[in-house]
Amino acid sequence: MPQKNVPAIVVGRLPLYLRTLQFLKNEGKRVTSSQELAERLGLTSAQIRKDLSYFGEFGKQGTGYAIEFLEEQLRGILNVNRQWNVFLVGVGDLGRALAHYRGFQANGFRLVALFDNAPKKIGGKVGDLTIHDTSAMPRVIAEKKLRIAILAVPAESAQAVAEQLVGLGVRAILNYAPVTLSVPPKVKVYYIDPVAALQGMTYYL
Amino acid sequence: MPQKNVPAIVVGRLPLYLRTLQFLKNEGKRVTSSQELAERLGLTSAQIRKDLSYFGEFGKQGTGYAIEFLEEQLRGILNVNRQWNVFLVGVGDLGRALAHYRGFQANGFRLVALFDNAPKKIGGKVGDLTIHDTSAMPRVIAEKKLRIAILAVPAESAQAVAEQLVGLGVRAILNYAPVTLSVPPKVKVYYIDPVAALQGMTYYL
Repeated sequence: MPQKNVPAIVVGRLPLYLRTLQFLKNEGKRVTSSQELAERLGLTSAQIRKDLSYFGEFGKQGTGYAIEFLEEQLRGILNVNRQWNVFLVGVGDLGRALAHYRGFQANGFRLVALFDNAPKKIGGKVGDLTIHDTSAMPRVIAEKKLRIAILAVPAESAQAVAEQLVGLGVRAILNYAPVTLSVPPKVKVYYIDPVAALQGMTYYL
Repeated sequence: MPQKNVPAIVVGRLPLYLRTLQFLKNEGKRVTSSQELAERLGLTSAQIRKDLSYFGEFGKQGTGYAIEFLEEQLRGILNVNRQWNVFLVGVGDLGRALAHYRGFQANGFRLVALFDNAPKKIGGKVGDLTIHDTSAMPRVIAEKKLRIAILAVPAESAQAVAEQLVGLGVRAILNYAPVTLSVPPKVKVYYIDPVAALQGMTYYL
């Protein structure tokens, strides 16, 4: 259940905490501290304590955080203690790499449908999944009750596809197209743009 | 030339302004406003004016911003009014898609070298580029004076490769491996993690 008034930037850091806890657990640790998390994440321990305080009390002064407990709590807060079915629109080079990416399934995001509008791709397979014509989106999205899309179409068609997806009930879009999408506030969009990422680093060089 | 005390989050937004200006220009516009930019980007116009005010006065009250002028200024601030040579470590599915991605070159980032440590990949080609053994990194990075790396290796080897890159003079890493890297403060790291992105959206669903 989302808490009120949690800044989006805080929400955006929770998955990083979750990932770090998983790594610490894989290293055989059972307990961690805001100091240890801060070192791993390049944040201050005060920032981490403040972020977590939006959601409750997860550690004890002096004894730190029980990793498994905090991980479970964060999964609950982020709504990822369940499986989400997701679908991909745009099966070019990048879409194909995403369809092969094992990290989604390992973290509770199951890719269940692929769409493209290129006749030569439709009917083809990537792994176990068949590439469907985008004209099948209304049927498939309704049947499978899908609400999360990964968008890997060319920039020039991204806005039109996004509008169609919103009309079909999609509420979250992971957008790889290098364009800012205009969607209603109820729809969440996360941008993956490696060029913008590189440009944000060359500032410092 | 970086200004002092500009928050990283502001720097991170400048590439989005730049991208939006390019789209507006492609639409045939010559002048824009903080209101128009705000609508495209889902920010407030006050935020945009505040962000830009860190770097100078770019518009006139009532007449807005000359798109080409602001674009040029932002390119200067971000250090992207030149070409940067970048290299890629890890040529799996994702690395291959990145090597084919035309958006880098179109925005002044030229991919000039590919590295992998899998014997069956070494010597192979992606487009015009040959995949080199990672053991050739010291020589190639020094010869081509490379400072920006794209890291698409498996999570378990990412930290070791990152340390090697830092030792070879790399100052910016675009990291696709799902792991937080520990590097000296002078080295910038930007994380591309689609799972964290999805988890940050399911919070709201």
